[in-house]
Amino acid sequence: MNTIRIILAGPRGKMGQEALRLIQTTDHFQLVAAIDHTHEGERVSDVTGIDVGGTIYTDAAHCMSTIEADVLIDLTNPEAGKKHTMLALQSRLPSVIGTSGFSEMDLGDIRALAKEQQTGCIIAPNFAIGAVLMMKFSQMAARYLPDVEIVEKHHDQKLDAPSGTAVKTVEMIQQTRSSKTQGHPDEKETISGARGADVDGIHVHSMRLPGLVAHQQVVFGGEGETLTIQHDSIHRSSFMSGVRLAVETVRSLDELVYGLDELIE
Amino acid sequence: MNTIRIILAGPRGKMGQEALRLIQTTDHFQLVAAIDHTHEGERVSDVTGIDVGGTIYTDAAHCMSTIEADVLIDLTNPEAGKKHTMLALQSRLPSVIGTSGFSEMDLGDIRALAKEQQTGCIIAPNFAIGAVLMMKFSQMAARYLPDVEIVEKHHDQKLDAPSGTAVKTVEMIQQTRSSKTQGHPDEKETISGARGADVDGIHVHSMRLPGLVAHQQVVFGGEGETLTIQHDSIHRSSFMSGVRLAVETVRSLDELVYGLDELIE
Amino acid sequence: MNTIRIILAGPRGKMGQEALRLIQTTDHFQLVAAIDHTHEGERVSDVTGIDVGGTIYTDAAHCMSTIEADVLIDLTNPEAGKKHTMLALQSRLPSVIGTSGFSEMDLGDIRALAKEQQTGCIIAPNFAIGAVLMMKFSQMAARYLPDVEIVEKHHDQKLDAPSGTAVKTVEMIQQTRSSKTQGHPDEKETISGARGADVDGIHVHSMRLPGLVAHQQVVFGGEGETLTIQHDSIHRSSFMSGVRLAVETVRSLDELVYGLDELIE
Amino acid sequence: MNTIRIILAGPRGKMGQEALRLIQTTDHFQLVAAIDHTHEGERVSDVTGIDVGGTIYTDAAHCMSTIEADVLIDLTNPEAGKKHTMLALQSRLPSVIGTSGFSEMDLGDIRALAKEQQTGCIIAPNFAIGAVLMMKFSQMAARYLPDVEIVEKHHDQKLDAPSGTAVKTVEMIQQTRSSKTQGHPDEKETISGARGADVDGIHVHSMRLPGLVAHQQVVFGGEGETLTIQHDSIHRSSFMSGVRLAVETVRSLDELVYGLDELIE
Repeated sequence: MNTIRIILAGPRGKMGQEALRLIQTTDHFQLVAAIDHTHEGERVSDVTGIDVGGTIYTDAAHCMSTIEADVLIDLTNPEAGKKHTMLALQSRLPSVIGTSGFSEMDLGDIRALAKEQQTGCIIAPNFAIGAVLMMKFSQMAARYLPDVEIVEKHHDQKLDAPSGTAVKTVEMIQQTRSSKTQGHPDEKETISGARGADVDGIHVHSMRLPGLVAHQQVVFGGEGETLTIQHDSIHRSSFMSGVRLAVETVRSLDELVYGLDELIE
Repeated sequence: MNTIRIILAGPRGKMGQEALRLIQTTDHFQLVAAIDHTHEGERVSDVTGIDVGGTIYTDAAHCMSTIEADVLIDLTNPEAGKKHTMLALQSRLPSVIGTSGFSEMDLGDIRALAKEQQTGCIIAPNFAIGAVLMMKFSQMAARYLPDVEIVEKHHDQKLDAPSGTAVKTVEMIQQTRSSKTQGHPDEKETISGARGADVDGIHVHSMRLPGLVAHQQVVFGGEGETLTIQHDSIHRSSFMSGVRLAVETVRSLDELVYGLDELIE
Repeated sequence: MNTIRIILAGPRGKMGQEALRLIQTTDHFQLVAAIDHTHEGERVSDVTGIDVGGTIYTDAAHCMSTIEADVLIDLTNPEAGKKHTMLALQSRLPSVIGTSGFSEMDLGDIRALAKEQQTGCIIAPNFAIGAVLMMKFSQMAARYLPDVEIVEKHHDQKLDAPSGTAVKTVEMIQQTRSSKTQGHPDEKETISGARGADVDGIHVHSMRLPGLVAHQQVVFGGEGETLTIQHDSIHRSSFMSGVRLAVETVRSLDELVYGLDELIE
Repeated sequence: MNTIRIILAGPRGKMGQEALRLIQTTDHFQLVAAIDHTHEGERVSDVTGIDVGGTIYTDAAHCMSTIEADVLIDLTNPEAGKKHTMLALQSRLPSVIGTSGFSEMDLGDIRALAKEQQTGCIIAPNFAIGAVLMMKFSQMAARYLPDVEIVEKHHDQKLDAPSGTAVKTVEMIQQTRSSKTQGHPDEKETISGARGADVDGIHVHSMRLPGLVAHQQVVFGGEGETLTIQHDSIHRSSFMSGVRLAVETVRSLDELVYGLDELIE
């Protein structure tokens, strides 16, 4: 496989460091530069302690015009992320953006420029490929098995219930599922809350215990059978399989793709 | 193993028929008579279509005084069940009673007579040995891992949530668990019900889907680990392992035992 | 929804009876006739005890030319199944065939005639929609997560291990999965068999216990995460969701479709 | 609860550091000294970066005679561990030893001295309370449900299969399980290894995938039901719940206890 030369924006954040480790351990990935708001001209390896090549640029435009690269990975924040993405598109540099929180207007601007420049850009709020597949498969299954409930399990330091992933899964399911009232029409809770949260007609149950990290189980029921799709994430490194996929795919695109599920065939 | 001669009360009910199949397929079990409110004098095999020995008596007292037996199994109802149990104890015939719904007063009468006659009697509201073990182990685990939640899953024809087994499990857990407030003190439900029913401080979640039968999962969380105890029941035949255990044990007892968990070592 | 008029071949078999119950409980399904090798002219309800309409024909060709129908369901055997399918195609009657065991030559004949007649025909070796989805999703996931193992669990009366479904799942996975040697290169079994069967490079583990029916778990591992796709089947009625899907879909087809997974979008 | 004053041997190892964090976060635990082979007289907090009290002694005998303590925790190696344990017993200091690998002779010496001194000592090869409970419950369940198989799942860097915990679980199960040949007498593997390793008559299956850490599932099957006992460990911190239990229990003992399962009630 041909080497893919990468510029990474945000090398010192938690995700940035995971990305450096990904680049370090992937034979055909090579770091050619990093963009940061400090440490101008220093070696990335000196600043992060991770043995990769490349030096740090604090001027993103200068970096992109100076360094020959194949893909930009941006793991910063919405403001810097948008700026870097627009710059990359102007240079026709394909980009993979792991920053969530873009506004609809931001996305509109990026989509328009990507189309004009016929340059690929992937923006993903969730890079854990297992989570993306879980949601995609749940969406597909709901077309055939409309009876479905979700159990999501997280560590007991999580404040909100249900989880954002569970709510997002319901949204995706509802795009394919024909309307159906689930459960027995006369069912009743003898103790309130037993049947979970009603998220747009689908029951969602949230478990919180020490020893858990981030888990979700989507259970579909049919006559005489059940189908369960379960994702267990125990470390933020899970996000790297999706970054790898995006980096390997983005150069063959000529527009904006929002969400990794759009890439799943 | 010596053959155990059995009188069965209630041979035509669903549970009674399962018991007949158990007797039929257990080498050292032998049916010597059945008690029913009809079919006097007919062969049990003719009435039920199950190939076992013995004839039917409509007079329980007459049956017990005429037929030499080692154990009475009663799978009728609280009223007939109490009458049969008292008769058996008077004849010093050990008995296994699968009738739930005895009042405290009934149990008191039976306990007193069993003690006086020094005769064994086992009354069990649940004979599925797997369910009994699940509850027993949950009770034991809670002493060491006080963070616990329950997910129970049943077919969507079940009306009540949470299940009786889940509530009973919480009761047993609370006998050993030191008081502890679970979850994050600031946790909040963004959609009501997400965190399940609060059953005496323990979160219980009830799933209802076609394709399920009767399942329960008790999850304990500790630092860096979880322990899950899960029971899956797919057929009422599951109740027979507990009946077999009770029949084999009751002759060595000299008092009333309530609940199979008392027999677990 | 418009009523779909159905001719059923094989109404007295186990699957045939399940199909009658499906027709009985589906509002827009109507039985207009059945094909059997005996009971000419009798009512289906008299012969089977299931309250549906229609009478029995022993001459399939006569039945199809006499009775106006929308779909043929065939749940017989390869020989009768092929004959009925060819007759249906000649009458341009869409057909759903649940008979496995067709030879490649049989399939070739059916495919050619379906194309010529531009008539839909669905032949499915497995109609449990949950099982079909499990295999389809496993195939899709393997493209992104090439590390995968399978645990299949069946009752202890099953003779062969691994199961046909597990082997079929591996075949489907290998169509998308890039070649990869799994596990540690220096791993070793201190007791032979621990790492399961090597099915074309994928480890398959077969559990056999009483209390199980038919279950399969496909586990994909990635950095920091796992994705599990699990199917639990507890009754042959599970097959009916797939028959319903096929009946509702086959009229919009103009060719042979082999396997329900071809219908999944 | 009264404060428990602790001497820790081996403060700089992985387990030692976890123990320091346990002491730091447990209100009624207090570190009064540490034993190490270097860093004489330095503060434990300076050497380890963990904010606890106490200084380091390189002479264990001197430490125990100088410092008033309630419990010794030893997380070193068999040689140092035995020396420290014998010293502690001579001073009638209760001890909790997390060192595996003692010989039978070592254990004999320790047992004899503990008895003579009437002083508690707990030696545990596995301190993860969840794992200990899993094995204990499996042993108890096997008395009633003799059909059992084990699936253990670990990361793909593990070299040996099956795991030591699985083999240990089988040993414990065989102490209570009546002899029984499992599976169908005519069952056969169409692909070798499908039915797993035969560990003393019990089938054990070993899964190895990235994204897993250390998991074990013990499945018991009975007529119409299954019981599953599952332990999931994702971090070595899981070992601390058992250390806490041992520290809180050891002062009430007057002899050697080997294995935490002996403490489970």
